[in-house]
Amino acid sequence: MRWEDVRGQTCSIARALAVVGDRWTLLLLREAFGSARRFEQLQRRVGASRAVVAGRLARLVREGVLERRPYQERPTRHEYHLTEKGRALQPVLLSLMAWGDVWLDDGRGRPLDLVHRDCGAVATPQLCCDACDEPLTPDSIRLRPGPALRSLDGPPEPEGYLDGPPDPEG
Amino acid sequence: MRWEDVRGQTCSIARALAVVGDRWTLLLLREAFGSARRFEQLQRRVGASRAVVAGRLARLVREGVLERRPYQERPTRHEYHLTEKGRALQPVLLSLMAWGDVWLDDGRGRPLDLVHRDCGAVATPQLCCDACDEPLTPDSIRLRPGPALRSLDGPPEPEGYLDGPPDPEG
Repeated sequence: MRWEDVRGQTCSIARALAVVGDRWTLLLLREAFGSARRFEQLQRRVGASRAVVAGRLARLVREGVLERRPYQERPTRHEYHLTEKGRALQPVLLSLMAWGDVWLDDGRGRPLDLVHRDCGAVATPQLCCDACDEPLTPDSIRLRPGPALRSLDGPPEPEGYLDGPPDPEG
Repeated sequence: MRWEDVRGQTCSIARALAVVGDRWTLLLLREAFGSARRFEQLQRRVGASRAVVAGRLARLVREGVLERRPYQERPTRHEYHLTEKGRALQPVLLSLMAWGDVWLDDGRGRPLDLVHRDCGAVATPQLCCDACDEPLTPDSIRLRPGPALRSLDGPPEPEGYLDGPPDPEG
């Protein structure tokens, strides 16, 4: 199966991965959430080749995750800014960071402190239920067909992860 | 720069991406959070080639995200189970799903409902501060050097995203 086909799946994870499921893309977004706006900055901080960075940026612009804004004429040069759609990816990046902080810290502690300005705490991000504010865990959730799958005629697809979370006893 | 070098960066996002920053890998984990345990199930549901699936699974086992458990002898066959480290990736997958639900829904609504068993609600996952329970937003956080970066002799690296979130005014 090619990614073009995966993208057509009625699955938000597959669709999201078709847009951002790539290491260099996610590193570019990491920088876009910081202060990097210009091609050379982005390329230097991410460390990929010009061709890789140009390709990934073009796709993110095409997908509406970044927008190009001119900052100079003759020759015209552009900065790359996160759109609202792009800023909505923050939980993906922070979840990756939080996982790396705990599981890949090399024994030296986390590289960065995440400071929550509103309360002043050094925060550990937690994924919570918006209804009751409690943390979501693998055992406390289940997935069932939603509006898009229920509207399909055939059997729901993909099948696998509708079956519920893994049994904690294995 | 090669990924082997990126992985050595004092950055939890880069390190996490070195392990799971790949589309097929994340699709395999999607299935592992469901009911798929065996190679053929995983391969069929993900839709990648045997070689791709075998390579990704081997890496996930090597990284301690999945563990192999024998379920049959002569010939020995194994199932793949999420470890604690693997289960800790749930926020990454749910964040990708939540983003796709909102931004890539094709106008037909989300494919799956996420039911929070504890409260019974169809939940939208929100990334929250573990100290005050409020949602984390791009404007409400900042990153500063943490224990691992403070322990380095040289200037902190990578530089970019220490500079704070983007200015909402652009």
